Amino acid sequence: MLDRNEAVRSSLAQRYAQVRRFSETLCKPLAIEDYGLQVVVEASPPKWHLAHVSWFFETFLLRPFLSGYQVFHPRFEYLFNSYYEQTGTGFWPRPERGLLSRPTVAEVYDYRRHVDGAMERLIAQCPEADWPEVERRLLIGINHEQQHQELLLTDIKRHFAHNPLRPLYRTDLPVAEPASPAPLRWLEYEGGLIEVGAQGPGFYYDNEGPRHRVFVAPFRIADRLVTNGEYLAFIQDGGYQKVAFWLADGWAQVKREGWRAPLYWEERDGEWWVMTLGGMRPLDPAEPICHLSFYEADAYATWAGKRLPTEFEWEHVAASQPLAGHFVEDGWLHPRAAPPGDGIKQLFGDVWEWTGSAYRPYPGYRSAPGALGEYNGKFMCYQMVLRGGSCATARDHIRPTYRNFFYPHERWQFMGLRLAEDCA
Amino acid sequence: MLDRNEAVRSSLAQRYAQVRRFSETLCKPLAIEDYGLQVVVEASPPKWHLAHVSWFFETFLLRPFLSGYQVFHPRFEYLFNSYYEQTGTGFWPRPERGLLSRPTVAEVYDYRRHVDGAMERLIAQCPEADWPEVERRLLIGINHEQQHQELLLTDIKRHFAHNPLRPLYRTDLPVAEPASPAPLRWLEYEGGLIEVGAQGPGFYYDNEGPRHRVFVAPFRIADRLVTNGEYLAFIQDGGYQKVAFWLADGWAQVKREGWRAPLYWEERDGEWWVMTLGGMRPLDPAEPICHLSFYEADAYATWAGKRLPTEFEWEHVAASQPLAGHFVEDGWLHPRAAPPGDGIKQLFGDVWEWTGSAYRPYPGYRSAPGALGEYNGKFMCYQMVLRGGSCATARDHIRPTYRNFFYPHERWQFMGLRLAEDCA
Amino acid sequence: MLDRNEAVRSSLAQRYAQVRRFSETLCKPLAIEDYGLQVVVEASPPKWHLAHVSWFFETFLLRPFLSGYQVFHPRFEYLFNSYYEQTGTGFWPRPERGLLSRPTVAEVYDYRRHVDGAMERLIAQCPEADWPEVERRLLIGINHEQQHQELLLTDIKRHFAHNPLRPLYRTDLPVAEPASPAPLRWLEYEGGLIEVGAQGPGFYYDNEGPRHRVFVAPFRIADRLVTNGEYLAFIQDGGYQKVAFWLADGWAQVKREGWRAPLYWEERDGEWWVMTLGGMRPLDPAEPICHLSFYEADAYATWAGKRLPTEFEWEHVAASQPLAGHFVEDGWLHPRAAPPGDGIKQLFGDVWEWTGSAYRPYPGYRSAPGALGEYNGKFMCYQMVLRGGSCATARDHIRPTYRNFFYPHERWQFMGLRLAEDCA
Amino acid sequence: MLDRNEAVRSSLAQRYAQVRRFSETLCKPLAIEDYGLQVVVEASPPKWHLAHVSWFFETFLLRPFLSGYQVFHPRFEYLFNSYYEQTGTGFWPRPERGLLSRPTVAEVYDYRRHVDGAMERLIAQCPEADWPEVERRLLIGINHEQQHQELLLTDIKRHFAHNPLRPLYRTDLPVAEPASPAPLRWLEYEGGLIEVGAQGPGFYYDNEGPRHRVFVAPFRIADRLVTNGEYLAFIQDGGYQKVAFWLADGWAQVKREGWRAPLYWEERDGEWWVMTLGGMRPLDPAEPICHLSFYEADAYATWAGKRLPTEFEWEHVAASQPLAGHFVEDGWLHPRAAPPGDGIKQLFGDVWEWTGSAYRPYPGYRSAPGALGEYNGKFMCYQMVLRGGSCATARDHIRPTYRNFFYPHERWQFMGLRLAEDCA
Repeated sequence: MLDRNEAVRSSLAQRYAQVRRFSETLCKPLAIEDYGLQVVVEASPPKWHLAHVSWFFETFLLRPFLSGYQVFHPRFEYLFNSYYEQTGTGFWPRPERGLLSRPTVAEVYDYRRHVDGAMERLIAQCPEADWPEVERRLLIGINHEQQHQELLLTDIKRHFAHNPLRPLYRTDLPVAEPASPAPLRWLEYEGGLIEVGAQGPGFYYDNEGPRHRVFVAPFRIADRLVTNGEYLAFIQDGGYQKVAFWLADGWAQVKREGWRAPLYWEERDGEWWVMTLGGMRPLDPAEPICHLSFYEADAYATWAGKRLPTEFEWEHVAASQPLAGHFVEDGWLHPRAAPPGDGIKQLFGDVWEWTGSAYRPYPGYRSAPGALGEYNGKFMCYQMVLRGGSCATARDHIRPTYRNFFYPHERWQFMGLRLAEDCA
Repeated sequence: MLDRNEAVRSSLAQRYAQVRRFSETLCKPLAIEDYGLQVVVEASPPKWHLAHVSWFFETFLLRPFLSGYQVFHPRFEYLFNSYYEQTGTGFWPRPERGLLSRPTVAEVYDYRRHVDGAMERLIAQCPEADWPEVERRLLIGINHEQQHQELLLTDIKRHFAHNPLRPLYRTDLPVAEPASPAPLRWLEYEGGLIEVGAQGPGFYYDNEGPRHRVFVAPFRIADRLVTNGEYLAFIQDGGYQKVAFWLADGWAQVKREGWRAPLYWEERDGEWWVMTLGGMRPLDPAEPICHLSFYEADAYATWAGKRLPTEFEWEHVAASQPLAGHFVEDGWLHPRAAPPGDGIKQLFGDVWEWTGSAYRPYPGYRSAPGALGEYNGKFMCYQMVLRGGSCATARDHIRPTYRNFFYPHERWQFMGLRLAEDCA
Repeated sequence: MLDRNEAVRSSLAQRYAQVRRFSETLCKPLAIEDYGLQVVVEASPPKWHLAHVSWFFETFLLRPFLSGYQVFHPRFEYLFNSYYEQTGTGFWPRPERGLLSRPTVAEVYDYRRHVDGAMERLIAQCPEADWPEVERRLLIGINHEQQHQELLLTDIKRHFAHNPLRPLYRTDLPVAEPASPAPLRWLEYEGGLIEVGAQGPGFYYDNEGPRHRVFVAPFRIADRLVTNGEYLAFIQDGGYQKVAFWLADGWAQVKREGWRAPLYWEERDGEWWVMTLGGMRPLDPAEPICHLSFYEADAYATWAGKRLPTEFEWEHVAASQPLAGHFVEDGWLHPRAAPPGDGIKQLFGDVWEWTGSAYRPYPGYRSAPGALGEYNGKFMCYQMVLRGGSCATARDHIRPTYRNFFYPHERWQFMGLRLAEDCA
Repeated sequence: MLDRNEAVRSSLAQRYAQVRRFSETLCKPLAIEDYGLQVVVEASPPKWHLAHVSWFFETFLLRPFLSGYQVFHPRFEYLFNSYYEQTGTGFWPRPERGLLSRPTVAEVYDYRRHVDGAMERLIAQCPEADWPEVERRLLIGINHEQQHQELLLTDIKRHFAHNPLRPLYRTDLPVAEPASPAPLRWLEYEGGLIEVGAQGPGFYYDNEGPRHRVFVAPFRIADRLVTNGEYLAFIQDGGYQKVAFWLADGWAQVKREGWRAPLYWEERDGEWWVMTLGGMRPLDPAEPICHLSFYEADAYATWAGKRLPTEFEWEHVAASQPLAGHFVEDGWLHPRAAPPGDGIKQLFGDVWEWTGSAYRPYPGYRSAPGALGEYNGKFMCYQMVLRGGSCATARDHIRPTYRNFFYPHERWQFMGLRLAEDCA
C-alpha cells in the first residue's frame, strides 16, 4: 500500500504523462511540413512548442534536481528558451523560430522521450527534501504545457489561415446545428466590498494572488456572450468606419491594418464565412463572436451603449458558478451557441472574455526570484486581462481566479466578449 | 455695478486674456527659426502650439457660438487640428508638423489676434441661453491652452537637446544652491473604503470623475520624491544592465534605444551633467530625479524593494494637503530639492509622479458626445496615470484629482517618482 | 598694370564674389522660416546649403592654405560637412538637417561674410607655390557652389510643394505664352569610333575624363525634348497601369509610391496643373516634360517604341552645338517649349536629359587622393547619367562633356528626356 | 530510323528528362523540414524551386501548346509564379514563400510527375507547325531549370548557415589538399574594335545579343582569381574600416550590416573558418575568394591599386578559351585553387566574376513580347554583370557570352573577382 507521499507522486506522474501525451495527440493531424511554420511573430511553430515545453522541464526541474542528468543537446537551451533572461543562456530570436529546419521533427520527439524518461525518474526518486519545490515546479510545468497546447491550436489556425489553399487541421470536427440565439438577458449584482484572487489549497499562478478586497459598485452583466449576429449588426451599422466608437490606438490599428471584420471572417459574394480548425464555414449568427481584439470588443460595447465588465465584476459573478462550458476536451475546437435556460451562461470555455481591466499586479504581489519569476510578473504592463478560458483550453487548467492577458490589438486567440453596465 | 453674470464673464475674460498672454510670454526667448522645429513625433513646434490652441477656441467656441464669425484662414482647420476626428476636417499628419514653413510666425500671431478679438466679443455678448455651454467650453479651452504651455516648454527642451550646440532657452534662470537631500521618511496611511475623483463645484476634466468609492489597503508612502543621488545609486548598481528589475516591454525599450540613464543626462569625463532650459548643469544629487519613463520608475522601485503608489493612494494622501510646490509661475523651470521639515512634501509641482495605475475610465464614466468628447476618453488604454503637476505646470491648473497620462516609454515631460509600499 | 598672374587672381576673385552673391540673391524671396526646412531626406534646407558651401571653402582652401585662419565656429565642420568621410570630422546625419534651428540664419550669413573675407585674402595673398593647387580647388569650390544653387531651387520647390498652402517662391516670374509644340523630327548620325570626355584647357570635373574612344553605332535622335502633351498621351494610354513598359524596380516603385503622373502634377476636376516656383499653373502641352524619374523616362520610351540615348550618343551630338538654351540666368526657372526651326534643339538648359547610361568611371579614371576625391568617384554605382543642364543651372557651369547623375527613382530635379533609336 | 526532326525531338526529350532528374538529385540530401525554409527574401525554399520550374513548363508550354492539358492544381499558377506580371495570375508574395506548409513535398513531387508526363507527350506529339516555338521555349525552360538548380544550392547554403546548429547539406563532399597559391601573373591584351555578344546557332539568352562592336583600350588581366589569402591581407590592412576604398553605397552597406568579412566567414579564436555545403572548414588561403558583394570586390580592387575588368574585356579574353573549370557536375560544390601552369585560368566555373559593367541592354536589344519577355529585360537597371559560371553551375549552361546579373550588395551566390588594369 502506497503512503500518502507516494500516492501524490504517482498521481502527479500520471497527470504529467497524460498532459505530455495530449500535446502529441494535438499534433497528430499535422504534416511534417506544418511543424516548422511561423507566419507571424506571435504564433510559434508546433515543433518549437513541443521542444520549448520540454526545455522548461529540463531547465527548471531536471538540471537543478535530477542528479547526473545529461542534457539532450547543448544548444537546445538556446534554441528553445522563450524569453527567460535570467537563465543566462540567451534565446534564439522569437521572430525567427520558423527559420530553423533542424532539429527535425523526429529529433524533437526524441527530445521529448529523453525528457519524459528523466522526469519519470525525478518524480519517483527525488529526495523528500527537494519534493516541495519539485512539486511546485512540476505543477507549473504541467500548467505551462497546457497553455502551450492552447497556443498550438491557435497558432496552427493562424498559420493555416495564411495559406491560400486554406488547409484543414481536422477533417472530422463536429459542426453544431444552426439555432436561434437566446435573447440576451441582464443579471444584476449588488457588488460591495468583495474579495477576489486566489489562495490555496490547489495550484494557481502567482498573478492570481494575493487574495484581497476590492470595492465593486452595483452592476448588471449579460447572461451570455455577444454573438456573431449581434456583432454583424455593428459592422452593418458602419462600426469599422465610425471613429466615435473607438479608442485612439484602436482606430489607428483599424486604419493601419485595414480591419473591417474580426480575424478569420471572409466575405465571399456578400456572404460571410469563417475559417475554423475544420475549414471554412458559413457564419453562424448564434455562435459567440470570436477572434476579436480588445479594441473591437471595446468599440462594440461603446456602440451598444454598454461597457466591458471589470475583471473583478467577472470574478465576483464566476466565483459561485460551476465550471461548465466547452473546453478542448469536448472536441469542438470552436465556440458554441449559448444553451437555452436561465442564469449566467458561457462564463467558462468557448471564448476568453476581454475585461475592462489592465493587467497589473494585485496589492502585495511579488514575482518569485530567479528566472521562473519571469513567468507572469514582467508582463504586467500594456496588456488587458481576459477571463474564463476557451474551447481550446483544458478544463482542469481553468479557475474563476485565472487571469489571462494579451495586448489590446491581438486577436488570434479564441477571444470574445460579454457586456456589462452600471446600475443607475 | 456689474451683476453676477457680468462679473463672471468679466472675470473669465480676464483669465482668458491672461492665459493667452502667458503662451506668448513663454515664446519670447525664441528665435524665429525655433518656432518650426519638430525633432521627434511627440514634440510639436512652438508655432503649431500657438496656432492649435487658437484653432481650439475657433472650432469649439467661435464657429458654433459667435454669429457672423469669419475664420481667419480656410485651411487652418486642417493644419492645426491635432487629432479630433469628429470635426470632419481631417488633420495634417502629426509627424509632419515641422515640415511647414508657412504660415509664418507673424501670420500665426495675427491669427491669435484675430481669435482673441472674436473671443472677447463672444464672452461679452453671447446670449444668456448659450452662456452655460460657452462657459463650459471656455474653461476647457483655457485649461487646454495651459496644457499646451507645459508642452511648449517640454517640447522646446526636447528640440534644443537634439542640437549639438545645446542652445539655451533662457539665459537668466535661477539655479538652486546645492544642498544635502533630506533623508527619506515613510508616512503610514490606513486606507479603507475611500472616495476618489472630482465633483463640482469648480472646473475639472471629465476623466477625473465620477467621484466613487475604492478600497485601499493600509500602505506607506515616501515623504518626498526620489532624488538624482538615489537614482544614480541604481545606475551604479547596474540598474540598466540587470533584466530582473524590468518589465518585459521596458527591457525591450532599454535594449532597443540603448538607454543607460534618464533623458537629458550626459556623461562627460566621468561626471554627469543634465540639460536644462537654462543649459547644461552638473547633476545635483538632491534634486528630484526627472525625465524618467514609467519603465525606469518601475525598475527603480523594484530595485529599491518598493513599488509605485496607485493613483488612489496618491489622491488619498494629496486630498488633504495644500497645493504647495514649484510651478511654472515660480520661474525655476526645473524641479527643486525637497525642503527640510516633517510631513509629506513635493506632492504638487516639481515633477509629475508616475503611479502604478493604468489610465482607465472611472466607473460610470462616459465621454461627452461629439468631437470635444475626444479630449480624454479615447486615450484610456495603453497609458499610465501621473499625478501632481510639475515645474512647467500652471498652479491654477492642478488639483488633487487631476489625472495626467502618458505612454510608459515616454520621458520628455518633467516626470519622476515617489516610492510606496504595503503595510505588512 | 597687372601681370598675368595677378589678372588671373583678380578675375577669379571676381568670379568667386559673383557666384557667392548669387547664392544669396536666390535666397532673397525666402522667409526666415523657410531656411530650415527639410521635407525629404534628399532635399536640404536653404540654410544648410548656404553654410555647407562655405564649409567647403573653409575646409579645402582656408584651413590648409590661409596661414593663421581662425575657423568661424568649431562645430561647423561637423554640422556642415555633407558626406566627406576622410576629413575625419564626421557629419551631422543627412536626414536631420532640418532639425537644427541654430545657428540662426543671421549667424549663417555672418559665417559667409567671415569666409568671404578670408577667401579674398587667400586669393590675393597666397604664395605662388600654393597657387596652382589653390586655383584648382577654387574652381572646384566655385562650381560646387553653383551646383548647390541649383539644389537650392529644386529643394525649395520640393519643400513648398509639400505645404498644402502651396506657397510661391517668386511672385514675379514670367510665364510663356501657350504655343503649339513643334512636330518632332529625327536627326540621323553615323556614329563610328568617336572620342568622348573632357580634356583641358578649362575647368572640368574629374568624372568627365579621361577623354577616350568609344564605338557608337548609327543612331537617330529626336530634335527636341519630349513634351507634356506627349507624356500625357502615355498616361492616358494607361502608362502607369501597364507593367509591360516598366523596368522591374521601376514598377515596384510605381506600386509602392502610388505614382500616376510626374512629380508636381496635380489633377483638379479633370484638369492637370503643375506646381512651379511661381505657383500652380495649368499644364502647358508644349513645354518639355519635367520632374520625371529614370524609370518613367525609360517606360515612356518603351511605350513610344524608342529608347533613351546613351551618354555617348548625346555627347557626340552636343559636341558640335552652341551652348544655347534657358539657364538660371534667363530667369524663367521653368523649362520652355522648343523654339521653331530646324536642327537639334534644347540640348542645353531647360531640363536635364536622362540617358540610358549607368554612371560608371571612364577607362583610366582615378579619384583624387584625400577627402576631395570623394566628390564624384564614390558615387559611381547605382546611378544613371543625365546630360545638358536645366533652367536652374548656371550657363557657365555646363559643358557638352558634363555628367550629372542621380538614382533612377529620383525626380525632384528638373529632369526630362529626349528619344533616340537605332538605325535599322 | 529516325528522321532529323524526330532525332532532335528525341534528343531534347532526353535532355529535358536529365535536367529534371538532376533537380531532384540535388534535393536528395534534404530532410522534409528543409524543403520549406526561406531565411531571407532572396533565397527561396527548395520546394518552391521544384514547383516553380514545373510551373514554368506548364505556363509557357503545356497550357498554350498541349491540347487538352489539365492543370495539376488551379491555385499553383498563383503560388508558383515568381514575378511574371503579364500572365495575369498575380503571384504569392516573394518574402512569404517560406510561409506555406502546403502543398506538401510529396504533392510537389506529384506535380513534377504530372508535368513531366505531359511534357513527354508534348515533345513527342506536338504539330510540326508549333515545333519551332515549342523548341525555343523548351530550351529556355531547360536552361531556366538549370539556373534554379544553382539557386537551390546557394539558397540551401544560405538557409543552413542561418541555423546555429550549422547543418551539413552533404557529408560526403571531397575536400582539396591545401596548396600554395600560384603567384599572380598579368596577361596583356591589345583590345581594339572588337565584337561581343552572342549569335546563333545554339541557344543563348536574349540579353546576350545582339552581337555588336565595342571599342576596348589595351588592358592587362590577372591570370587567375583573387584568393582567400590575398583578400585576408586586405582585411588585415583594415579594408573594412577605411572608407577610402569604398563606393558610397557600399560603405553605407558595410556600416548598416556590420560587415567585416565575406559572407560565411567566421572567426573563432583568431582563426577564420568558412561555411561550405559540406560544413565548416578552416580557411584555405589558396582558394578563390568567394561570397563577396560587388562593393567588396570593387573595394578590394581599389585597395590593390587595380580595377575590375569590364564585361567586354572579360568576354574578349574568354572568347578564345576552352570551357574548362569546376562546374556542378564535378561535385566539389566549392571553388578550387588555381592549377599551376601558364595562361589564363579559372575563367569558367569555380566562382562568378564580378565585372565593372552595369547590366544594361546591348544596342538593338528588344525584350520579347508577352510574359516570357520579362525573363531578362526588365532587370536591366541597378544590377552589375557577372561572368563565367561557378562550381554550382551546369557546364552545358555556360558560354563566353553568358551574362549573369545581381545587385551590388548581394553575396550569397558563389561570387568572386579577378583583377584588371589599364595599360599605361
